[in-house]
Amino acid sequence: MDLQKIANVVRGLSADGVQAANSGHPGAPLGLADIGTVLYFDFMKHNPTNSNWANRDRFVLSGGHGSMLLYSLLHLSGYEVSIEDLKNFRQLNSNTPGHPEYGDTDGVETTTGPLGQGMANAVGMAIGERMAAARFNQPGYEVVNHFTYALAGDGDFMEGVSAEASSLAGHLGLGKLIVIYDSNKITIEGSTDLAFTESVKDRYLAYGWEVLEVDGHDIPAISQVLAQAQKNLDQPTLIVATTQIGKGAPTKAGLAETHGAPLGDEEVAGLKESLGLPADQFFYVPEELKNLQQMMAQKGEQLESDWNKLFADWAKEYPQLAEQWNNWLSGKLPDFEEILTMFPNDTNIASRAASGKVLNAIAKKVPNLVGGSADLSPSNNSFLIGEGSISAQDFSGRNFNFGVREHGMASIMNGLALYGHFRVFGATFLIFSDYMRPSMRLAALMKVPVIYILTHDSPYVGEDGPTHQPIETTESLRLIPNLHVYRPADSEETAWSWYEAMKRNDGPSALILTRQNLPFLEKPKGWDFSRGGYVVREEKEELAVVLAAAGSEVNFAIKVAEETEKEGLGIRVVSIPNRVVYLSQAESYRHKVMPLDKPVLAIELGVSTGWYGINPGGKVDVFGLDRFGASGPGQEVVEYLGFTVEAVKERIEKLVK
Amino acid sequence: MDLQKIANVVRGLSADGVQAANSGHPGAPLGLADIGTVLYFDFMKHNPTNSNWANRDRFVLSGGHGSMLLYSLLHLSGYEVSIEDLKNFRQLNSNTPGHPEYGDTDGVETTTGPLGQGMANAVGMAIGERMAAARFNQPGYEVVNHFTYALAGDGDFMEGVSAEASSLAGHLGLGKLIVIYDSNKITIEGSTDLAFTESVKDRYLAYGWEVLEVDGHDIPAISQVLAQAQKNLDQPTLIVATTQIGKGAPTKAGLAETHGAPLGDEEVAGLKESLGLPADQFFYVPEELKNLQQMMAQKGEQLESDWNKLFADWAKEYPQLAEQWNNWLSGKLPDFEEILTMFPNDTNIASRAASGKVLNAIAKKVPNLVGGSADLSPSNNSFLIGEGSISAQDFSGRNFNFGVREHGMASIMNGLALYGHFRVFGATFLIFSDYMRPSMRLAALMKVPVIYILTHDSPYVGEDGPTHQPIETTESLRLIPNLHVYRPADSEETAWSWYEAMKRNDGPSALILTRQNLPFLEKPKGWDFSRGGYVVREEKEELAVVLAAAGSEVNFAIKVAEETEKEGLGIRVVSIPNRVVYLSQAESYRHKVMPLDKPVLAIELGVSTGWYGINPGGKVDVFGLDRFGASGPGQEVVEYLGFTVEAVKERIEKLVK
Repeated sequence: MDLQKIANVVRGLSADGVQAANSGHPGAPLGLADIGTVLYFDFMKHNPTNSNWANRDRFVLSGGHGSMLLYSLLHLSGYEVSIEDLKNFRQLNSNTPGHPEYGDTDGVETTTGPLGQGMANAVGMAIGERMAAARFNQPGYEVVNHFTYALAGDGDFMEGVSAEASSLAGHLGLGKLIVIYDSNKITIEGSTDLAFTESVKDRYLAYGWEVLEVDGHDIPAISQVLAQAQKNLDQPTLIVATTQIGKGAPTKAGLAETHGAPLGDEEVAGLKESLGLPADQFFYVPEELKNLQQMMAQKGEQLESDWNKLFADWAKEYPQLAEQWNNWLSGKLPDFEEILTMFPNDTNIASRAASGKVLNAIAKKVPNLVGGSADLSPSNNSFLIGEGSISAQDFSGRNFNFGVREHGMASIMNGLALYGHFRVFGATFLIFSDYMRPSMRLAALMKVPVIYILTHDSPYVGEDGPTHQPIETTESLRLIPNLHVYRPADSEETAWSWYEAMKRNDGPSALILTRQNLPFLEKPKGWDFSRGGYVVREEKEELAVVLAAAGSEVNFAIKVAEETEKEGLGIRVVSIPNRVVYLSQAESYRHKVMPLDKPVLAIELGVSTGWYGINPGGKVDVFGLDRFGASGPGQEVVEYLGFTVEAVKERIEKLVK
Repeated sequence: MDLQKIANVVRGLSADGVQAANSGHPGAPLGLADIGTVLYFDFMKHNPTNSNWANRDRFVLSGGHGSMLLYSLLHLSGYEVSIEDLKNFRQLNSNTPGHPEYGDTDGVETTTGPLGQGMANAVGMAIGERMAAARFNQPGYEVVNHFTYALAGDGDFMEGVSAEASSLAGHLGLGKLIVIYDSNKITIEGSTDLAFTESVKDRYLAYGWEVLEVDGHDIPAISQVLAQAQKNLDQPTLIVATTQIGKGAPTKAGLAETHGAPLGDEEVAGLKESLGLPADQFFYVPEELKNLQQMMAQKGEQLESDWNKLFADWAKEYPQLAEQWNNWLSGKLPDFEEILTMFPNDTNIASRAASGKVLNAIAKKVPNLVGGSADLSPSNNSFLIGEGSISAQDFSGRNFNFGVREHGMASIMNGLALYGHFRVFGATFLIFSDYMRPSMRLAALMKVPVIYILTHDSPYVGEDGPTHQPIETTESLRLIPNLHVYRPADSEETAWSWYEAMKRNDGPSALILTRQNLPFLEKPKGWDFSRGGYVVREEKEELAVVLAAAGSEVNFAIKVAEETEKEGLGIRVVSIPNRVVYLSQAESYRHKVMPLDKPVLAIELGVSTGWYGINPGGKVDVFGLDRFGASGPGQEVVEYLGFTVEAVKERIEKLVK
């Protein structure tokens, strides 16, 4: 196989794709064509005819703006990316969007674009490989045995999220993780000398990685260095590849302007000439490469069929493991409905404590549920009791010590969940979900079913003060499309929240939990958690006002209702553990819960904004908190902030008038 | 001065404070008492009788949970923190909140608690010192000449934000920044060996820092190493101090359990005994230290008065510089109202482009306006043309190259703004504000008047696809208390947004700007931007529906109004550049803009949630976007997502029925 030829065709395809779209990033594909080609056509174990082969090598293009590189490689390898698709680069509903989108394109392992995330995803995938290997491999049967490769650029290395994940990767000795650093010395604003003069090499040595160096345009040297990287199974390897951005472009190579704008017709023609490609042909694949896809298919199918034989023998010898394998990969869950009734109705515990009990109960039934905390497991109640912890020496455990690395945790969770086999949770204080937000958004976008345990959910946090008291945080999570946010009102609702989050397979869930104790709520017969909101307390007088609340404010609303009803006003209380799901219910249900002709007062110890839409078409007022909190004992703080039964009663009276 | 004695008294006060509150973190104060004491009583140039002395050394306790250390040091130094205040640690409305809160406590330079932020703030302060020195110092007159010290723990070093800022600090050669690493090998979950085994020392060497090591409990050695650190003016210095968490506690020293829970009465008594303090006395300061505050006051006043003499001579010789100094520090701004009328009414440019022009026009008038972009200045239009860039060699410039480090940028902005003298802006794509969110929240909490330039604000971003298209982002920023969010509808509103953001001195502002062009909007006479929302188009038929919109959707709403009015329905269009300010207007104004008896349809190319409260008491519907975007040309994407004149017309018709 003439790898240099392939690399140059990749350059041609990439430049044409960007030019046809008149939009995109040619610099990275031209700079990385040689490395990408060596990986896809020489080094990676993959099967283009089955991108879901479980034991494939994983590849992550962390600098997602270089998407045309990936699409060109996928096309030439024989994935379901046609020349027509390349011509539709960046067009609406094509499978070649501007950045690689997981689920849109055959062979794309994760969505990248926001820098740093792909690298951390790759760390998660490499952890997944080690964890799966620890569970399934048996003497003579390495059914899990592959590498994870990532290509990352200067921007990826400047982002803190990649630093967090890389430190953890070194700690865990992820020997089968190989990251190639596209060191082209150029960023959007110009030379990296403007802002980035650290020694990345020395930094990665400090993390405990092996660091190798290579000329990123010397194909035999790239092969050599990759072979060397594969040999070190005790440390992740960083390969610092010196490259030229826009390599091959006659006048623009090496310049920042190749990063994010089409080269122009003339420059593309010049590029092709310099590469020995016909300047007047677009999306050109030479005759001699016409059978490349077929070759790659044969090679890939051979790899997979060899593995299938191994797998079949293994499955015969270890049928229980094989069953587990199939269940885990398919997402099949055992029954764990018993958690729904695990709390007696005198349970008065914090929802974080309830969550800890539910989590442990589920974990006993669901052996592939794994996760951990960003150094807050005692506070988050997120430890799986009796289970081991993941370490460089032993990946058979189920608990993670993520360190104080919220962002890295969330991005690693994405990679681990994408890897397959595992259901993944991660925990921190709700307030620090701000640190994880970019990765949470990507989980929602990719429809990855990870679960966030977010405790200490309101000014009831108390003494730690405003830096630790969420005000806008729950609402800000409710805004993320496809993220299910649960704010349960007691232990029973906490169990239900876990139940639904576990059953979900098309996106992430966030459990918003209290630090302080919550009383068990008696619910009316027929209450239905799955609707996102339900009547938790019926009015005893003629209905005057509906109180809608979530979490700890539900019990508060019940107190208000009881006090107010003494004065003859019928008050109904609705618990809304999942507002988005509630609002997606049919009007017929919602108007039974909140009649259109009755005023609704929503109560939340957080910003009011999001509650005005709780009963579209009806009268809604909100008793919220639109300022930062304060330091002091929780109950005092909450009263100081105006959350008293008296104050809400007054608001109800005003509302009724 | 018996520094060891002082350090032990600090330990006693800290343990008593936590014990009295029955809440807090004793481990860090006990572990850091020796270092803190050397800094406050031996090394730092500060004046406890004037915590605002401009040339004071800055001190940041990055691990803010160790607040009792800081309060004890402030008390013993003679700042306005009394023994009574220490006894009120963590009580409501005390000046000794759970974490140090900027503005609450004399001598506290920044709010810390969310880990990593303090370190990055310190980098910002150290940059501030260099920038002020470059502007004000003259031969023989070093009016700006001080150090910035930060104390940071394992958690701070695990966070990505500190990594980003530290890389930049090394790049900029911040020789007067000294960070002391409280290396106690303990985090909440236990030993750092569980998650954090990198070599911090080698990592900081890789960043270009000087790294020194010391026994954090050997007071003479601490003094020595600080003296050595001060000598290196070309590199920031990291001092790795080996410490024991909870040092002095008889049975718990060195254990994770000292981190975040009171020690208990018995343990505190044992601590005091081991330190030679009376076990039965609380908040004890021995006789021999009673005059410490006075000594520190004298020393501090002497330092400041020496400096005042230098300053006076300098001011005499350089009166223009002195005037600038006074104006800058007091926040006085020259007149720049002319920007409000700088755009002719045929201006059809993107609001990011308008912002670039306004920014440059203001910068010409306001010489202390400085800032930069996280490697997107060509796209953010955030470069100050004709001005130099900050570099290790030259701090006289006004442009920053922050690198691809959004989070580090935002946290450095906080530190630089807190430093004084400068008005600071920072720029990135709106979507990447998610990366900066923890620091933006702190800016809002601290009331720091930084300005965020956030461009590419909607699915009009187009080809870059869903990872780059904000949907929930603008709304999520509107939720942060005290953050002013502007989404201007044209060049003129952009100028007004800048004007108000610049005039603001009690909190941050975010400017949400388009990638695509926006036509200039003709406004009715008397339109008033300062109210946050105003009628931009009067209805021409009898009013049927009010359309409320922001940013690019205002022009879209006007198109809808014109089409709909053809059918006899009077449509008013209201532009809401700042929704929070609009909602804070008196009802009388709001009901003139949006009569209570007319339905309002809010239109935004983003999540609908936040708009339901736009006219409390009235009928409101929202035409929003509650899903992720798509990759394709911007206009096509927006139409694909349902934003067509026809679709909104239909909604209006439904609403009127």
